[in-house]
Amino acid sequence: MKRLTIIFLLISTITINVSGQRKIIHLPDLPGYVTLKCDLHMHTVFSDGNVWPTVRIDEALRDGLDAIAITDHLEYNPKDDYIPVDHNAAWKIGEQYANDRNFILVHGTEITRKMPPGHFNALFIQDASLLAVDSVMDAYEAAIKQGAFLQWNHPGWKSQEPDGIPKIYPIHRILIEKGWLHGIEFFNDREYYPQIMTVCKQYNLTVMANSDVHGVISEEYSQSVYPNRPMTLAFAKARTSDALKEALFAGRTLVYFGDILAGKEEFARQFFYHCISIGKPYAENEKSIFFEVTNNSDVPFHLVNGIPDAPAALTLAANAVTRVVVNKKVTSPLTYDVKNIITGENEVLKIELRY
Amino acid sequence: MKRLTIIFLLISTITINVSGQRKIIHLPDLPGYVTLKCDLHMHTVFSDGNVWPTVRIDEALRDGLDAIAITDHLEYNPKDDYIPVDHNAAWKIGEQYANDRNFILVHGTEITRKMPPGHFNALFIQDASLLAVDSVMDAYEAAIKQGAFLQWNHPGWKSQEPDGIPKIYPIHRILIEKGWLHGIEFFNDREYYPQIMTVCKQYNLTVMANSDVHGVISEEYSQSVYPNRPMTLAFAKARTSDALKEALFAGRTLVYFGDILAGKEEFARQFFYHCISIGKPYAENEKSIFFEVTNNSDVPFHLVNGIPDAPAALTLAANAVTRVVVNKKVTSPLTYDVKNIITGENEVLKIELRY
Amino acid sequence: MKRLTIIFLLISTITINVSGQRKIIHLPDLPGYVTLKCDLHMHTVFSDGNVWPTVRIDEALRDGLDAIAITDHLEYNPKDDYIPVDHNAAWKIGEQYANDRNFILVHGTEITRKMPPGHFNALFIQDASLLAVDSVMDAYEAAIKQGAFLQWNHPGWKSQEPDGIPKIYPIHRILIEKGWLHGIEFFNDREYYPQIMTVCKQYNLTVMANSDVHGVISEEYSQSVYPNRPMTLAFAKARTSDALKEALFAGRTLVYFGDILAGKEEFARQFFYHCISIGKPYAENEKSIFFEVTNNSDVPFHLVNGIPDAPAALTLAANAVTRVVVNKKVTSPLTYDVKNIITGENEVLKIELRY
Amino acid sequence: MKRLTIIFLLISTITINVSGQRKIIHLPDLPGYVTLKCDLHMHTVFSDGNVWPTVRIDEALRDGLDAIAITDHLEYNPKDDYIPVDHNAAWKIGEQYANDRNFILVHGTEITRKMPPGHFNALFIQDASLLAVDSVMDAYEAAIKQGAFLQWNHPGWKSQEPDGIPKIYPIHRILIEKGWLHGIEFFNDREYYPQIMTVCKQYNLTVMANSDVHGVISEEYSQSVYPNRPMTLAFAKARTSDALKEALFAGRTLVYFGDILAGKEEFARQFFYHCISIGKPYAENEKSIFFEVTNNSDVPFHLVNGIPDAPAALTLAANAVTRVVVNKKVTSPLTYDVKNIITGENEVLKIELRY
Repeated sequence: MKRLTIIFLLISTITINVSGQRKIIHLPDLPGYVTLKCDLHMHTVFSDGNVWPTVRIDEALRDGLDAIAITDHLEYNPKDDYIPVDHNAAWKIGEQYANDRNFILVHGTEITRKMPPGHFNALFIQDASLLAVDSVMDAYEAAIKQGAFLQWNHPGWKSQEPDGIPKIYPIHRILIEKGWLHGIEFFNDREYYPQIMTVCKQYNLTVMANSDVHGVISEEYSQSVYPNRPMTLAFAKARTSDALKEALFAGRTLVYFGDILAGKEEFARQFFYHCISIGKPYAENEKSIFFEVTNNSDVPFHLVNGIPDAPAALTLAANAVTRVVVNKKVTSPLTYDVKNIITGENEVLKIELRY
Repeated sequence: MKRLTIIFLLISTITINVSGQRKIIHLPDLPGYVTLKCDLHMHTVFSDGNVWPTVRIDEALRDGLDAIAITDHLEYNPKDDYIPVDHNAAWKIGEQYANDRNFILVHGTEITRKMPPGHFNALFIQDASLLAVDSVMDAYEAAIKQGAFLQWNHPGWKSQEPDGIPKIYPIHRILIEKGWLHGIEFFNDREYYPQIMTVCKQYNLTVMANSDVHGVISEEYSQSVYPNRPMTLAFAKARTSDALKEALFAGRTLVYFGDILAGKEEFARQFFYHCISIGKPYAENEKSIFFEVTNNSDVPFHLVNGIPDAPAALTLAANAVTRVVVNKKVTSPLTYDVKNIITGENEVLKIELRY
Repeated sequence: MKRLTIIFLLISTITINVSGQRKIIHLPDLPGYVTLKCDLHMHTVFSDGNVWPTVRIDEALRDGLDAIAITDHLEYNPKDDYIPVDHNAAWKIGEQYANDRNFILVHGTEITRKMPPGHFNALFIQDASLLAVDSVMDAYEAAIKQGAFLQWNHPGWKSQEPDGIPKIYPIHRILIEKGWLHGIEFFNDREYYPQIMTVCKQYNLTVMANSDVHGVISEEYSQSVYPNRPMTLAFAKARTSDALKEALFAGRTLVYFGDILAGKEEFARQFFYHCISIGKPYAENEKSIFFEVTNNSDVPFHLVNGIPDAPAALTLAANAVTRVVVNKKVTSPLTYDVKNIITGENEVLKIELRY
Repeated sequence: MKRLTIIFLLISTITINVSGQRKIIHLPDLPGYVTLKCDLHMHTVFSDGNVWPTVRIDEALRDGLDAIAITDHLEYNPKDDYIPVDHNAAWKIGEQYANDRNFILVHGTEITRKMPPGHFNALFIQDASLLAVDSVMDAYEAAIKQGAFLQWNHPGWKSQEPDGIPKIYPIHRILIEKGWLHGIEFFNDREYYPQIMTVCKQYNLTVMANSDVHGVISEEYSQSVYPNRPMTLAFAKARTSDALKEALFAGRTLVYFGDILAGKEEFARQFFYHCISIGKPYAENEKSIFFEVTNNSDVPFHLVNGIPDAPAALTLAANAVTRVVVNKKVTSPLTYDVKNIITGENEVLKIELRY
């Protein structure tokens, strides 16, 4: 065995072809549920995207997702000089490809209208071509007949709402009353719509986040500021398409983008406490007690507004153990606001560190 | 809440001061043992290194280590025009600093002689100055009297052995006979000495790996080919200095550098099977069965020499799920050589995937 | 002006939309010629590639290229269930898009046959559909009638030549005799064919290198070992399609991949000396003279086989100034072999550093 | 020649030992001047820094600097239990080391007092120990006698000025009147003090930027948001210590940090126009004219407040060619504010693109 062998082994890691491999995103499951990482809004050459459908599945495996929906536009087909319109093409191309890779492909499409009502995704459908009808309400009805989950996309998109603020128009109220609106995007690509948190609470809708990618994922989200795409974390009873659908209809989600988590307080709280563990004090001196907080997740937590004599702010870095030094005279609970877990339009998660 | 808030939160992750935080290296514990990540050979300004002792502890915390030994040279003090010789200086400066950070600092020193016998580290000592004596055997004896673990450093270092091959000189045999030699470095910085595997087996010595760093760790090991420093994984009964010492004397180690693991077969085998888990088949077609292997560790495994009708080679990427497709006509066990787990001078680990 | 402003400015750099921007690759022009960086072999959804043609132009601008050819297969159209065959589609889609970006798109196609003769690119054509004929010689003739430059692709591709060694079959000799073969790929993706250097010299053919990319460039060539795609450097009289064509027919090329340059010695030598400049000695002592070599290019140069009393090896890092220390007793020229500039099947460039 | 050779060549680039190599920072010289990149404020183990003096020179070479000053504290020596105080130690250790590397080491020290007057660097001195006197005015006088350039460090440092705003105290006025204050830091590490721009203009003082590093440069400034340390760009008549001193006394500087440049308008304007070149229009259509702007520097320029019918904002990315599309009806000059070139407390550089 010569020196060269070592070099060769090291190299082989670098040039590995990761085709078919799925990265592990370190995010905890919740009791009774598996946490499915989903991106349910994206495009291919079958509408205005720039890649073939299998690329979307390869990208998602590489990123560690469990499920995607390809949702090409029904009403916008700018490549039809070269590619005949087929609203189910991405599904037909991707279905077996996904199954072979133990990956969930959700059959979807985007109903693409002016605001109001704006753009909507119909997810878990059987035939997108039946939704390609003139009347938008007819399109929604055709989706509902197929059992679809209807998601309102980028509700404050500046091309449709110049002030960036989502508005509930009469047609949205009708959809809510009929039970035809099930979820709304809080994150869409790099945009976010804080007001949606209030709407989702008020009408019991599911908080969603998706990339809406048209180009190449690794080029859009490779930089340090946006290291991963927006995704919906669904707390499902199993890692199946049906269980995912049930979780979405039941509203069991958090959304995740960059280092931000957002969603309903009950899931945010559980999720946070499953990410971290707190050790017993390992040292003390005359003045202080020392203990450690382990964050086993890929999400750093930015704790602020600490009580007097405790650290005013703490960052629990991702996949790291953080040392905490607390003054011995502290007797009240060690409470913090988690600045990057959003639980309402103007609320963040409040937590306590018990050591 | 405005858009800017999101940007600010994201930024705060980047500019985080990680002082006092310890990265989690994803490596499994073994039943009954905690896996301590150790680098037990390094230098500071108190011999020919270029940094202050606390820098070594900060570097190690950042890298996720549990223990280091600072082992400045007894006999080589090139900075003594400016810094008076004090063989215990690094220990005195670092001891409390380490304790406050829940980190194990091992008191050590390097007995620095020509080959034979070459350079040796005395670890777990109480007073290095007592080892600063003329006769090398007297120095060893002073170390042994303090209960030291004696490690032979870089036994094939080209400055001392131009052909790069370690040789067992009479003085080494004497040390072995006296029970004064306990471990030998397999990796030292970027060098490695395959013959040491045979020596360690023959004389029941502990396989070690260390950085021997003189400059700045993050500058030496930041590149893709050498993403982490060489380290000794010790399987200890607890995360304490005493338990580490017991594990080293008992020979319970593997060494880890780049994507290479090396050590005795019994630990290598256990360790590999604790890194991975194998799922039940999730799909099949006329010809093939599909299952997944999950590698929860930071070490990729390069499997080669597969049986006919199974993949000839498989890389189980680190922190990833790998899809395996096997022909249905395969009936014999799915055996592989793990190319990057070295268990002997010319041996690698042989494993079986049971699905 | 507050602190926040600075953070915002810094961020804006990161999130910059680089659409339409062309990176500067630091490679020198030669006297009388501009160095055009070209990748003249790649695929899109119009054959077996996975992206839309405009993606290829965006990728090339981002990488700093001056010219590409999209060369979809004439005889292999696996996506024709969804995309009707149109051999000129990529050209029609890309032509105006390239012009608007001051970028050279070469109209090309790949004549895709078994070995012999293997795969050939016809470049600088007007209508690819005229080449879609049964007889391969008829296809070549149709290309030649359009003034095409004919390039033999991956001549030792293991799918066609299991031993990886290119062979000159009778049909290749006929093409050479007719003057219908103009260039051969030395690099194709990560493969290379050293024997081609001899063939190109013997028959006065042009040395070429291309990516043959089917997926996404930034995913194929983003790692430290393969930081850039293979490219053909053409020494052209102007930055135009016509001048590029003239340069290729005249054989004025070098090829570039990773940190390797290869090609005819006359261009390699000129190119090397235009990359570097040598400073006057800036210091000396009793024993040595010190001078600096500046490498203004993106290519590091690995100099080996130095004369006695000079450094045995020197790396002139890319975009860096390298210090050289030479013993005063050196009187002969400071000659080196440039290990990473290949000028023949078993030859590298020999140079001299004059200080 | 076999395939392995290529792999080996590529690897050799990665593992290159860059000791003694100086990176090229792509920043233009100005007519009659060479642009020296300087960091004139930093610490070593000889005060409260953590590295040996030669590390500072190695770091600076790696970063492409031309000059540094090591400015250990006169009055703060927390390591004196282990290292006897020697105010000239860093200079004595570094002088020859710098000369051998064609690098400018400036002899300096930091006079470290409470605010007012705060901390001051004395640069270009001969003997720091003569400045170690009780009275701060005596210390300044001792520096001036040695011909020193006196720099006021971090004038709004929050440890000394809780509101972060620099204040001109009587002692500062006295220094200005005596001609003993020559420069002030605008950037110190990650802090900046916009008010200093006004002070420097009013009293004709030199604008400075330095890292004030105590730890390891590559760990402090390796992230995307802070890719390089703060530095002073001095426009000097030659690349010598004397010429640098003359340039600083004459006030010919800009400062550079992240993607921000700041300084007097006359230098900022010249510098910007030497970074970029504007091509002739390369295309037009009915509506628009297309031309390119080449930015040959490492600094991106963020142009904002464009005139109507021209792009409202343009980023001229570093080392890139940017395409500009202007409406044909534009007749007035194409003016912009360069958001990241600061020329006053509330001013940025205004420029014009002439195509």
